Amino acid sequence: MHPLLSQLDSAEPLKDFSSAQLSEVADEIRDVLCNLLATRTAHFASNLGVVELCLALHSTFDFRTDRLIWDTGHQVYPHKLVTGRYKDFASIRTQGGLMGYPNPHESEYDLFMTGHAGCSVSTALGLKSGDDLMDRPNSKSVAVIGDGAFPSGIVFEALNNAGFLNKDLVVVLNDNKMSICPRVGAMAGYLDRLRGNPFYTGLKHEVVKALNHVPLFGDPAERWLAQMKEGVKAGLLGGMLFEELGIRYIGPIDGHDIPLMKKYLAMAKASEGPVLLHVVTEKGHGYKPAAEDPVFFHTPPAFRDEDGRPVANAGSGQPPYTVSMRDAILNVMEEDERVTVLTAAMCQGTKMEPVRERFPDRFFDVGICESHAVAFAAGQCKTGIRPIVNIYSTFLQRSYDQIFQEVALQDLPVVFTLDRAGLTGPDGPTHHGVYDIGYMRLFPNLAVMAPGYAGEVEPMLRFALQHEHSSSIRYPKTSAFDLQKIPEPIELGRSETIREGTDGTIVVFGALLESALAAAESLADRLSVGVVNARFAKPIDKAMVARTLADDRFVVTLEEGTTVAGFGSAFLEEANTQGLDTRKIKRLALPDVFVEHGERGDLLAQSGLHVEGIAQACQQWNSVTRVP
Amino acid sequence: MHPLLSQLDSAEPLKDFSSAQLSEVADEIRDVLCNLLATRTAHFASNLGVVELCLALHSTFDFRTDRLIWDTGHQVYPHKLVTGRYKDFASIRTQGGLMGYPNPHESEYDLFMTGHAGCSVSTALGLKSGDDLMDRPNSKSVAVIGDGAFPSGIVFEALNNAGFLNKDLVVVLNDNKMSICPRVGAMAGYLDRLRGNPFYTGLKHEVVKALNHVPLFGDPAERWLAQMKEGVKAGLLGGMLFEELGIRYIGPIDGHDIPLMKKYLAMAKASEGPVLLHVVTEKGHGYKPAAEDPVFFHTPPAFRDEDGRPVANAGSGQPPYTVSMRDAILNVMEEDERVTVLTAAMCQGTKMEPVRERFPDRFFDVGICESHAVAFAAGQCKTGIRPIVNIYSTFLQRSYDQIFQEVALQDLPVVFTLDRAGLTGPDGPTHHGVYDIGYMRLFPNLAVMAPGYAGEVEPMLRFALQHEHSSSIRYPKTSAFDLQKIPEPIELGRSETIREGTDGTIVVFGALLESALAAAESLADRLSVGVVNARFAKPIDKAMVARTLADDRFVVTLEEGTTVAGFGSAFLEEANTQGLDTRKIKRLALPDVFVEHGERGDLLAQSGLHVEGIAQACQQWNSVTRVP
Repeated sequence: MHPLLSQLDSAEPLKDFSSAQLSEVADEIRDVLCNLLATRTAHFASNLGVVELCLALHSTFDFRTDRLIWDTGHQVYPHKLVTGRYKDFASIRTQGGLMGYPNPHESEYDLFMTGHAGCSVSTALGLKSGDDLMDRPNSKSVAVIGDGAFPSGIVFEALNNAGFLNKDLVVVLNDNKMSICPRVGAMAGYLDRLRGNPFYTGLKHEVVKALNHVPLFGDPAERWLAQMKEGVKAGLLGGMLFEELGIRYIGPIDGHDIPLMKKYLAMAKASEGPVLLHVVTEKGHGYKPAAEDPVFFHTPPAFRDEDGRPVANAGSGQPPYTVSMRDAILNVMEEDERVTVLTAAMCQGTKMEPVRERFPDRFFDVGICESHAVAFAAGQCKTGIRPIVNIYSTFLQRSYDQIFQEVALQDLPVVFTLDRAGLTGPDGPTHHGVYDIGYMRLFPNLAVMAPGYAGEVEPMLRFALQHEHSSSIRYPKTSAFDLQKIPEPIELGRSETIREGTDGTIVVFGALLESALAAAESLADRLSVGVVNARFAKPIDKAMVARTLADDRFVVTLEEGTTVAGFGSAFLEEANTQGLDTRKIKRLALPDVFVEHGERGDLLAQSGLHVEGIAQACQQWNSVTRVP
Repeated sequence: MHPLLSQLDSAEPLKDFSSAQLSEVADEIRDVLCNLLATRTAHFASNLGVVELCLALHSTFDFRTDRLIWDTGHQVYPHKLVTGRYKDFASIRTQGGLMGYPNPHESEYDLFMTGHAGCSVSTALGLKSGDDLMDRPNSKSVAVIGDGAFPSGIVFEALNNAGFLNKDLVVVLNDNKMSICPRVGAMAGYLDRLRGNPFYTGLKHEVVKALNHVPLFGDPAERWLAQMKEGVKAGLLGGMLFEELGIRYIGPIDGHDIPLMKKYLAMAKASEGPVLLHVVTEKGHGYKPAAEDPVFFHTPPAFRDEDGRPVANAGSGQPPYTVSMRDAILNVMEEDERVTVLTAAMCQGTKMEPVRERFPDRFFDVGICESHAVAFAAGQCKTGIRPIVNIYSTFLQRSYDQIFQEVALQDLPVVFTLDRAGLTGPDGPTHHGVYDIGYMRLFPNLAVMAPGYAGEVEPMLRFALQHEHSSSIRYPKTSAFDLQKIPEPIELGRSETIREGTDGTIVVFGALLESALAAAESLADRLSVGVVNARFAKPIDKAMVARTLADDRFVVTLEEGTTVAGFGSAFLEEANTQGLDTRKIKRLALPDVFVEHGERGDLLAQSGLHVEGIAQACQQWNSVTRVP
């Protein structure tokens, strides 16, 4: 079915392939992508866009000794298909199968497990620096980075260092004019202008050649001419922004023309010092529906191949927390003109498009620039604005220092809404948001919250917006629990008792409340188990801690986060501060390892965070004798 | 003595001052700085450098309604002197006195407490955005940022956003050619070239004027000419790098010429959209010894005014941990060619100059770019290099996501050495490094260590370098404890018992070991108190936890970090996992508030982390009855 691909055990043979053969491989890759991605949600348009680039790279370099980093990593499918993983490809994004991102455990061709944007230039530069020190000076280092990731601050830090160290390094800027959503920012405008550059006309080369006859040194008039010459060259050649930083700029070139790319990649490979090769690709290239709507086809649901229309999705019927929060945000923005929303290029993932449409002046997409997003929000907040910073839990790590200095230290009432807080499922460990409970509760002044059910999402947001200090609300990527209950008013550091019980209590921080209630119910004929919706990890409800530990009752704490320093630890700390015996406390949380990819439900069950696991913990801890 | 300064209750009168008067104020400010700074360690050369800039700013804008952010913040002394704080100035950097950084609690002229570099452009842009939304469109927003802080990634993120939003914003680039150490990076080279620009010659204006007659639109030949014209303008005007991002560039101009700066600041103020004003200053200006050696005079010890020679410093005689670590690093680098060191512009603070001199090829100063530093180290590490990332605890927060993704997730054996981990003293809350125990132990694979005395610094570093996973070693800004003891070999997750005791144990993580031993000694006639040097917060010594809690003995955990999620919490977690009673555990740590500035010893005492406080905790917890 795929005669060339199926024979490729490694990328090595590609360098001897003819242009026609490479073109055939490209067709086969597209066929595999379309067939497979009709069956599941996966990254699609970005992978279609880099098919030719991937082949040009692998036929120019040997990445068993040369170094290749795919920034952000979700465009790595063609790379996997040509580096010995064709046969396993059907397993991609399923538990135990191939990862949807580069994975060093799968192949020597994958060096870094990437997923967060922007670090490729730094790691590629580090690889080159290391190879030189380790006496492998001939090893080449290549970073492939999209224009969406490119404005990320660390890229600039890396270019600044690369220009200074003057190491051989090839940065391929894969410019598809998109982040996941249409990309934003001044750099985007600059790249647009570069694309308008008459690179192929020949005119430029003529002029530059003529100008080269002007002497560089000599009397003032000559020096002036020389300066003028550099100016003309700069204006004509484009890429001056990079050239000023000591990075040689080549481009823009057509990213779907394999022979052309091979030519320029070979030139970049032979160059001394850092080179930026500006490659223009089309997201979704080769599959018409995806090329026409690359936002939808970034990670589309399973779709019918022939026309790209989605297959009907069963689903639970309940909207996800992401939508509950989006709707709550729309409601508060309707009432309060001071409320703004900030996103770091995740408008689609957090389903914020209606907010962008409805309140364009109060919606800020700053691009994949989380550090700036938080400091910018702090500035707004200081003027009386009430900004909501809406970022995935795992990506908020990128602004950790700004949460500290610009928000918590200034005691500004910025509201953080942390989407994807918990196991994100098929994306795997780069995307699981399992550290935020610990890292957010470290800083003074910050209230750390999580809703237990759909009905309290909006009250919690409203509480945060009137609270005088900063606060955060975390919620996972799952359907919001439809608890038929009017929530008690949200008060700082106050939990909500959902179910009374005399033998012990499950104290839940967040969305696992649903499973906790089911577990308590499943035990009803044997044990009387209460369920508390903790609401706050910080400040934790002191009275609740005392109450639940009274009378020799057991407590199972439950959270969708790591067992280190999380909600369970906060509970222990408070119990210890109150001088309470903690032996009947069982902390149920995710283990202190990087959890692999798979379906969220399966991964939770694997860690005992499913109904059966919770029920079992209750039974076990009920039998612990605390009184010695 | 200072007739003009002493009369300034606010900066308001400055706008009516004549150039001669402003010049007199400048002299008075320098006099105050020299007099005062002869008495204590404080930021000096950077403050001397911005005297005229500060006066030009305050006489052009009204920063009670306009917005001013001093990036990094240590150059804020002249600003404090002209905004009503002349009378209190003698208290600066002493406990209860003025902060050495901007402080909103001191003055309406201080908007953000800054200390970490690079966030000013983001917050200033946020302030402008907020003011516009809050119907204060006339408010102007100014960020003053040094060329050392400028390459920090968040600055680029902010410029990218500013060019896109096209908000009125003035960024003053205070270019003194220095970070604390001589600055590095390609941006530095670019700024050097800009400074070589013939801005004052008039020649440029002539040419640009002539070129303006070339039509912008028309037939292809004319368009080519237009393009050429833009090229020439770019090359001549300089600042193309900024102009390409939609930031208007003005400069470079003399940062010690007040009338000139007022002229260009007024121009920038009147401009629409973002403007970057490139101001060239001399660090240490007006005080010859400081201008000649700005590195030494960044934060010099108390010195004699007349010639700048340091006053003899009593000191404890013991070298600080910083030096112990530096010497250990020199030793291991001597033996192992794979070892490299990375710093983020803190070569001086971490006393790494001898490493830089001795091993220039294996020493990397990447500038104030902590995110890049960590990802770059990860790249090196992947090739077989053993990088040591040497960054202050508080600044390492800036690379939190890279510690996660590029190091821990890849399971690469990068070694982090966290200087200034604990209370840094007079710098205050922006610089205290009190969160790292919690934030480092969150990620799988990372070993979290701290030496208890000088003798184990090198063994601990050697352990980290042969360990197969990543690890961190924290140490505070204080003399290293000279415990007369040959350290037991460092083993993963193994503590060291320093003193046996039968009533209870102080379990110390880090440098407070010295105080713990003194406390145990002080109680010797009443209580038999053991002292354990924990060494590891992660993995914690499980057997030690069991042993110290046996037989109804009390445990006091002790650390120079926050009480939330730190070492004490790790101890509680392990005790809970083992099913042990925790009621006789007292966690001694810093409170969950932002600790102010002051002498480290005083601040520790204030939180009960001094010898008396520790002894008291032992007595108190010894009397807790655990058996109910």
